[in-house]
Parts: sequence; C-alpha cells; structure tokens
Amino acid sequence: MGTCENAGQKEKVPEQVLKGKVMANMFYEASTRTSSSFMAAMQRLGGTVIPFNESISSHMKGESLADTVQMMAGYCDVIIIRHPSQVRSKLLLSKLPEAGNQWRGWCWGTPHSGLLDVFTIREEIGTVNNITITMVGDLKHGRTVHSLARLLTLYRVNLRYVSPPNLKMPQAVKDYVSGKGIPQEEFSSLEAALPDTDVLYMTRIQRERFENEEEYKRCCNLYVVTPHTMTKAKERMVLMHPLPRVDEISVEVDSDPRAAYFRQAECGMYVRMALLAMVLGKY
Amino acid sequence: MGTCENAGQKEKVPEQVLKGKVMANMFYEASTRTSSSFMAAMQRLGGTVIPFNESISSHMKGESLADTVQMMAGYCDVIIIRHPSQVRSKLLLSKLPEAGNQWRGWCWGTPHSGLLDVFTIREEIGTVNNITITMVGDLKHGRTVHSLARLLTLYRVNLRYVSPPNLKMPQAVKDYVSGKGIPQEEFSSLEAALPDTDVLYMTRIQRERFENEEEYKRCCNLYVVTPHTMTKAKERMVLMHPLPRVDEISVEVDSDPRAAYFRQAECGMYVRMALLAMVLGKY
Amino acid sequence: MGTCENAGQKEKVPEQVLKGKVMANMFYEASTRTSSSFMAAMQRLGGTVIPFNESISSHMKGESLADTVQMMAGYCDVIIIRHPSQVRSKLLLSKLPEAGNQWRGWCWGTPHSGLLDVFTIREEIGTVNNITITMVGDLKHGRTVHSLARLLTLYRVNLRYVSPPNLKMPQAVKDYVSGKGIPQEEFSSLEAALPDTDVLYMTRIQRERFENEEEYKRCCNLYVVTPHTMTKAKERMVLMHPLPRVDEISVEVDSDPRAAYFRQAECGMYVRMALLAMVLGKY
Repeated sequence: MGTCENAGQKEKVPEQVLKGKVMANMFYEASTRTSSSFMAAMQRLGGTVIPFNESISSHMKGESLADTVQMMAGYCDVIIIRHPSQVRSKLLLSKLPEAGNQWRGWCWGTPHSGLLDVFTIREEIGTVNNITITMVGDLKHGRTVHSLARLLTLYRVNLRYVSPPNLKMPQAVKDYVSGKGIPQEEFSSLEAALPDTDVLYMTRIQRERFENEEEYKRCCNLYVVTPHTMTKAKERMVLMHPLPRVDEISVEVDSDPRAAYFRQAECGMYVRMALLAMVLGKY
Repeated sequence: MGTCENAGQKEKVPEQVLKGKVMANMFYEASTRTSSSFMAAMQRLGGTVIPFNESISSHMKGESLADTVQMMAGYCDVIIIRHPSQVRSKLLLSKLPEAGNQWRGWCWGTPHSGLLDVFTIREEIGTVNNITITMVGDLKHGRTVHSLARLLTLYRVNLRYVSPPNLKMPQAVKDYVSGKGIPQEEFSSLEAALPDTDVLYMTRIQRERFENEEEYKRCCNLYVVTPHTMTKAKERMVLMHPLPRVDEISVEVDSDPRAAYFRQAECGMYVRMALLAMVLGKY
Repeated sequence: MGTCENAGQKEKVPEQVLKGKVMANMFYEASTRTSSSFMAAMQRLGGTVIPFNESISSHMKGESLADTVQMMAGYCDVIIIRHPSQVRSKLLLSKLPEAGNQWRGWCWGTPHSGLLDVFTIREEIGTVNNITITMVGDLKHGRTVHSLARLLTLYRVNLRYVSPPNLKMPQAVKDYVSGKGIPQEEFSSLEAALPDTDVLYMTRIQRERFENEEEYKRCCNLYVVTPHTMTKAKERMVLMHPLPRVDEISVEVDSDPRAAYFRQAECGMYVRMALLAMVLGKY
C-alpha cells in the first residue's frame, strides 16, 4: 500500500496563484462531489467562487444557455459547467468566443475523472507502468471506467474487466484499447481476476439495469469487497472507487490501508487545482 | 462602435480594497444576474460573500424582515437585499439604525441599472452628450428604461421611444424628462427611429401584455433586430439590452461589433464594484 | 447598560489567521442564523467556505452520512455539520478517524449557544459573577436555556426560572445546577422575578405546546416585554433573546439601550471565530 503523498498535506500548498480570480460553478444538475471539489480547489489557490446550482438555474429558463454563459463570462475568469445535455454543452462551446480571447478555457467533467484516477494510482503505487488494473461492476454505463481505460493506454498496463454479461465494457472502448496494444481480459467472477490485480477499481451496479431481482442479487453478491475478499488480494493492492459506494465495498474495509477511495476523492481536488491553474495560465 | 475599455481587463483590477469585508447577498426573489454580478464585484475587490437565496429565506418566515436584516447586519459590512415588496424595503430602511453607524449604506436595485447603462454608453461612445438614445419595446413596464430615461436628463441627449400603443413610456417619466428640457419623440416603428440613433436600447415585450395573439405578433415582428436591421443603423451605433433577451435580438447579431449587451452586463459588475467601494468608504 | 465591546468594531480584526483554510458548512436542516454566522466568522479570519444546504444534501441520499463527511474531509480543514439526528451525529463522530489526524475537530451546535450567551453577558456587564439571571418562557424545550444554565454553574450566579406550569425547566437541569451549589428559584410571573434581575433571558413560547388557546394566550400575555415592562427593570439590566423573537419582546423595546439581542447575535460571530481559530490550532 502506498500513501497519497499530497493527502493530508493541505497545509503545504505554497501560493495563492489564483488570487483575484473568480470561478463560476454552474451546475445545471446536482453533483455535490464535483461541485464541492472544484470550489475547494479554486479557494485553495486563492480564487473565489460564485455558486450557481440547479435551483438557481431554473430561474434562467427564459434565457438560452449560451446567453447565460456569455453573461457569466463577463463576471468570471473561469466557468465550470455541468449540464445534463452533453450535446448542448458541445454546441455551446462552438458558439462561444475563441479560447484565449476573453476567457481561457474549460474543464469538462468526464476527462478529469480519468486524470484524477491515474494521478491517484501514481500517488499510491509510485508508477502507472507494469501493473494490472481490474475494473469491476457496471462497465457498460460507468463513464469513469470508460475514461480511465482510454487514458491508461498511455501507459504499459494490463486491463481486466469483471462484469455481469449484460454490463460488459462497450466494444468501442475495447477496440480503442486494443488499438493501442494494451492487453485486455474479461472475467465474470471477481475471485478469478483478483490475485494478480494491483489496482482494483470498483463501481456501483444499479438494480434498474436488471430485468429480474434474482439476477441482480446473484451478480451483486459476486462483486462485493469484504475484509475476506481483501485476504485474497495482493498485500499492496490499491482499492479504488469513484464514490458514492453503496454495498459493493463493505464499511469494514475502510480501515484497511489498501482502501484508497477517500484518498482518491482528495486527489481529485489536487487534480482540479492543477487544471484550474493550467486553464488560467498559471502553471 | 467603441469598446468597453474595462471589458476583458479583469486582470488589471489593482487592489483588494475590500479585503476583510463581508457582504450578505439577501435575495428574497430570484435574480441570478444581479446576484452573481454583485458577488463577483465584491470578490474582485477582495471581499467575501454570504449567499442567502429565496429557498434559504423561506425558512425565516417566522421572523420579521427587519429582524433578519438587523441580525445579518451584525455579521456583515454591507447587505444587498432584493425583496418583492418595495414598500417593505422602504419601511425596513426607515426602521434601521442610522447610516454611518454600524453599517454604511445600501445599494438599491433600480438605480444601479441606470448607472450601469450610462456607464456602458460612456465606455462605448466616449461621451453621453449630444447623442440620440432610442428605447424600444415594453416601455410601460420596463423599469430599466424608466431609470435610464431619468438618469439621462443629467446629459444633453435626444430620447426616442418606440413601442406598441399599449406599452408607451409612462406619462410621469415623460413629464420628468421634459421638465429637464430633454427632447423626446415617440415612434411606433423601429425603422423610422433607427437611422439617427446612436444608442439602440432594446427591451423584451411579453406576450401576456396583449389581449390577442395577432396583435402581439404584429408588434413583435416590428421590434426585432436582425443583421438586416443593422445594415440600416449607424456604423458606430451601440446596441444595448438589459438581458435576458428572447427573440427581440437575433443571435446572428451577436457577432456584430455594435452588439454591446454582453459588454453591458460586464460593465454592470464594474459599476457594482464602484458602488460597493463607495458604500464602504473606500473611494 | 454595557456595550458589547467588540460589536461594531469588525474593522479591527487584525489578522487573517485562517487564510488558506477551507470550511464546509454542511447543513442538513435549515438554520440560516447559525450557517450565516459561521460563514462570516470563517471569512473574517481569512478562510473560505463551501456551502452545502439541505437542498444540496438531498441529492446525497444514496450515500451514508459518514461517507459524505469523510469525502468532504478530504477537501476541507474544518466541517460544520447540522443534522436533524443528534444520534447519527454522535455515531458519525465515533466512526471517523482520530482527531488530529487529517482534520482537527468539530464545533457542535448546542454548546456554542451557551458560550455566546455567557460571552455576551460578560461583554455587556463586565463580569458573570454575582448577578441574577432570569430565564423566561418555554424552559422545557428550549435548548439554549438548558445549555446556558449548565454553563453558568461555572460562575457565582443566582438563577430564576419564569415559565407556565407545563413548560418548566427540566428536573435534570435543575438537579445539575443545584449539585453545583447554584441557587435557583421558580416563578410563574415575570413581574415578580423582574426587579432584582441583571440579565433577562427571554425565549419563545409556541402555541402548539398548549392544549387550548385560552391557556396559551393567558401565559403569553404574562411573558411579553414592552417598554412598560422595562420601566420596572434595573436601569442597567441586559435583555437577551436567542432569536428569532416573535411577540415576546415588542419592537418598541429595540431602541432601549438595554435591548442586547442583536448585539448578542453579533457576539455569536466572535465566539465562532474563536472556536474556529481554536479548532484549527491557531490560538
């Protein structure tokens, strides 16, 4: 088990490089984790935040999203936007003034989850090369695992996918990964994939994905990490989860030093600090 | 067309003159634009903000508005309040301790819209004198145009009003303006008023103001600014709108350098910065 | 009448000892007063705040409170939490990592109301010893009076309780107070208790506590402080109230220099500043 070197060292952030900068946190759908993490990141760099949640945004319905954003751009230096429609977000970007003109850039939701996961692995293990990463759960719908699998092709890794038959990693992701020469293996049982695993990346399986309750329960029970599961894992394995976790990791595992998911959340803040500093030209 | 000299120069704000100051943003009705703009203004001067929206305020119903404000005044250096009842707001002010005692002043909603509009005109054109300002749309209910018309009597201007017969500028405003010796003309067609116009100030016409749909559509079509409209306008005309715009300015006009409405919104932040600094005795 | 020495001197706060520190304000139930006061306290010490209200928290229902808090602890240096279930809060604390490890401590709602009340008394009178404090109203359910009575046993005081028969101070509190050798007297009428009183601590009586309307009205009328009441009080008596007040203190009393309740609210901010500085190791 490694330790996230930055975790718990919030005191050491040296400079307020974003002092005087204002960030708008425009969340058109609820995402307390991402929203709080970006707020903390901005504030830790000396910047300030204008909160803007969905209840606020409901009052803006008479105005187009592009207009609201353009107005906020006049008040702020950087905007974090989360909107249910990715299509609208992309459309929006195409309508806005050139980057570098009045506002410098954008941080998008999906890529930064991959960045924080890779950063966590590197902090925990010391390297991202020559390791086996096993992703478990709903690999079909989980955007974090799609983002992570693609990003890991930049390293020399082995990927393992453990999922029920109806929730397998999409072919498009597998094609992308194999196109980069990264070995992939699929499993239906966690036990089979576990022993050689260096990073175990758990995700949540939602009941709604299954046609009948029995099938759901059978799958769920297969993919629960308990202290017993951990006895079969490598002594220095890293256990990750994008949170929120429900039952797929039992709370008894929290005190296991290999349980990295809360450190992973904290690393998310450091990655967002880096993104904000980069986007605002301060790195 | 001029450019708002401050727009896009947020980097240059030199000092954090309100460092250590706390502003409460008490919005008893939704107004994301005003609220966000005041937050950004306070933060850009180094101050901090306590947000307080209508969902929060609903929990304060057992307490009188005067008590809630007096309590917040103990925590803050300046309070921005927006309340549906102007009567209650005025009553409130009369009940509160002397200005200059514990808290220095108040910023009221209506006057600052006039200030930011005049500031924008001056930034765009370089002067507010010897120009023709044409206000278009719902001049009966639009509080921004009432405020602007009154404020413009401090300058040597010509005012033009373009509106449907049922939405004319109120007689009280016209009397005030003529009492100051400012020439005013009324038009029912935008085309007739446009050619000599230096500042075209568009406002929204709401469907609910009309008894039948036909009448509404006929008026609306008359008061829509399109790229074609702009070909008939002065080369350096300034096109303003208090936002949100709906259909009265087509999005194709946004890329016209004369379209000043987003710069106008940004100027609103600078005016609020000036107001806050003034109210807190830092100018 | 004394004056709260710190009140109105917010300018003089010398240092931003919590600069760079981030506080999460996790309010699972509405409490604008406490929430705003903690925000102002943190900001006045140079720290920043991540707001987190109940509408936000409703989106976190899939996650256990302990998990949400552990995640936020990765982003923040201090967490203020208000949750309807005190049991869950205590349980939560027991599950969290050691204090001093990643996060240093917690501020709990009930004790700090007692602290701010005692601080206000000391600011107003100059001492907390050799005075008579009279608590009035719903002494059965009011948590502020329970907290205050217990805390006052650290001083040499006389306590008086004025309440309807069905809303008396609980036996457990009276036993605790008498165990510390503090004299206590019970009254049913405010007039009888008033003349020797140095601190009159009013609380609200809720209609729902009474079986019939007549009984409620009879009690309420007995416990209303009016300018007439104040003529019978000591010339330097201190009139306190935890707020919100409804009818138990008439607004005409606000201009009486003995009316200390708004200064009391402001003192609450200073006490919270002290608590935050202490909890974050900066005192």
